[in-house]
Amino acid sequence: MKALEKLTSANDANKFICVGLDTDIEKIPSFLKSSSRPTLDFNKAIIDTVEKNAAAFKINFAFYESAGYDGIKILSETIDYIPDDILIIGDAKRGDIGNTSKMYAKSVFDHFKCDAVTLNPFMGYDSLEPFLLYEDKLNFILALTSNTGASDFEKQKLDNGTYLYQKIIQKVNEWNTRKNCGIVFGATKNDELKENMNNIGSLPILLPGIGTQSGNLKEVISSFKTMHRKQLLINVSRSLIYKSGGKDFTLKVKEELVRLNSEVIKLFET
Amino acid sequence: MKALEKLTSANDANKFICVGLDTDIEKIPSFLKSSSRPTLDFNKAIIDTVEKNAAAFKINFAFYESAGYDGIKILSETIDYIPDDILIIGDAKRGDIGNTSKMYAKSVFDHFKCDAVTLNPFMGYDSLEPFLLYEDKLNFILALTSNTGASDFEKQKLDNGTYLYQKIIQKVNEWNTRKNCGIVFGATKNDELKENMNNIGSLPILLPGIGTQSGNLKEVISSFKTMHRKQLLINVSRSLIYKSGGKDFTLKVKEELVRLNSEVIKLFET
Repeated sequence: MKALEKLTSANDANKFICVGLDTDIEKIPSFLKSSSRPTLDFNKAIIDTVEKNAAAFKINFAFYESAGYDGIKILSETIDYIPDDILIIGDAKRGDIGNTSKMYAKSVFDHFKCDAVTLNPFMGYDSLEPFLLYEDKLNFILALTSNTGASDFEKQKLDNGTYLYQKIIQKVNEWNTRKNCGIVFGATKNDELKENMNNIGSLPILLPGIGTQSGNLKEVISSFKTMHRKQLLINVSRSLIYKSGGKDFTLKVKEELVRLNSEVIKLFET
Repeated sequence: MKALEKLTSANDANKFICVGLDTDIEKIPSFLKSSSRPTLDFNKAIIDTVEKNAAAFKINFAFYESAGYDGIKILSETIDYIPDDILIIGDAKRGDIGNTSKMYAKSVFDHFKCDAVTLNPFMGYDSLEPFLLYEDKLNFILALTSNTGASDFEKQKLDNGTYLYQKIIQKVNEWNTRKNCGIVFGATKNDELKENMNNIGSLPILLPGIGTQSGNLKEVISSFKTMHRKQLLINVSRSLIYKSGGKDFTLKVKEELVRLNSEVIKLFET
């Protein structure tokens, strides 16, 4: 199944929340820590609990890589454990010269079998092309990110009066000949999101920043009111998966996910 | 030993070439392929041969990650095999929101024990800070890269008349309060290098693009003539490590490394 079809069918089924597996051994419920592979157990428990309600899973490579090859093994086993019909985003923010990006694409798509990836556009088209050549995948390219540092370069004004991130959105639309591109737009940047919905057009949008980073769901959805719902993925990581440290943590995660998703649906209807 | 001291002592000893271990199973001598871990054997043979002549080693994470956890294990064992006094650069081009970058920094510096890293500045200061907090390490931040896509965004002109990559160089100088920053500047961009030597100031410069990417050593060194030599690292990967596919490959690699380094010294003297 094509990555874009997975996203569309999730949105069709009124699912909009992407569950971010930023799994940190320091933050998972302590009762799990006696197991031999606590982070994998945690991930499996979350996946089992939310697989019917999650629009997608986003796996943050950094959290696994920091434990070396044992972590990479857990990353791989986590991905294998996710049901085939759910979109899996490898949150890797890659981008390098062509022959190196080809290796990263091989890693994310062929080896780890992610459906989608996050990419850093800084080095330009040829740094992304090896990923874009995978027709059935989805490439979420950073446009304007949720962090404060976004003002350092992403929000620099160019000599034609537009901002760098707007130039990126324009380029991503040009590069989207295979209909396998999307953008990442910070849920903390609602004014800019609203202003740029026309430029974004029909590109799928991955929105991180809700929850711990204090993005506001109501604000985010207000930009989407007149738009088609089939291009929206709101990522929630820490504030969702670490909702409870108790034995009932899966229950709390599911309740929170259902609540967030219902809120999105309600906001679409108002 | 601090990363910067390793670079300085290499430059003091007239060593300027960084050996890029972009090790690709498809490209190593075929007689090695019968071994159980051919890429590790290849790396060890290269390291044994050039450790007296290399200014540094640059390990390209993509080439290891693409083989999953087995590859990550080889990455780790390769780093462990490099003598302690030689600078090891983790070529990872990382950059993400703060809590994720903290995990990447932990990975590159604490887990894999690299002395230095390459970083992508797109997301701004807070995306790099977790790396910059490691005082004894070196952070080579992308300014203007060697690929053609550099014109897409890095060479966009800002409304103050400077280019984005120049803004980055200015910022990196501001962020260099711990004297642990450097920049990456493509060896294929010699006019821009020459124009920006004053802006770069005393930042260490990692220059990829010599060899397969056709950067010209003479052109590169001409920018450095009046500058101090203690900030220069010229990376050569494919055109060096795959110099020969025969049983004598280590000999050929050493000859080429010695030749390149002598050429740099000669160019400094003319």
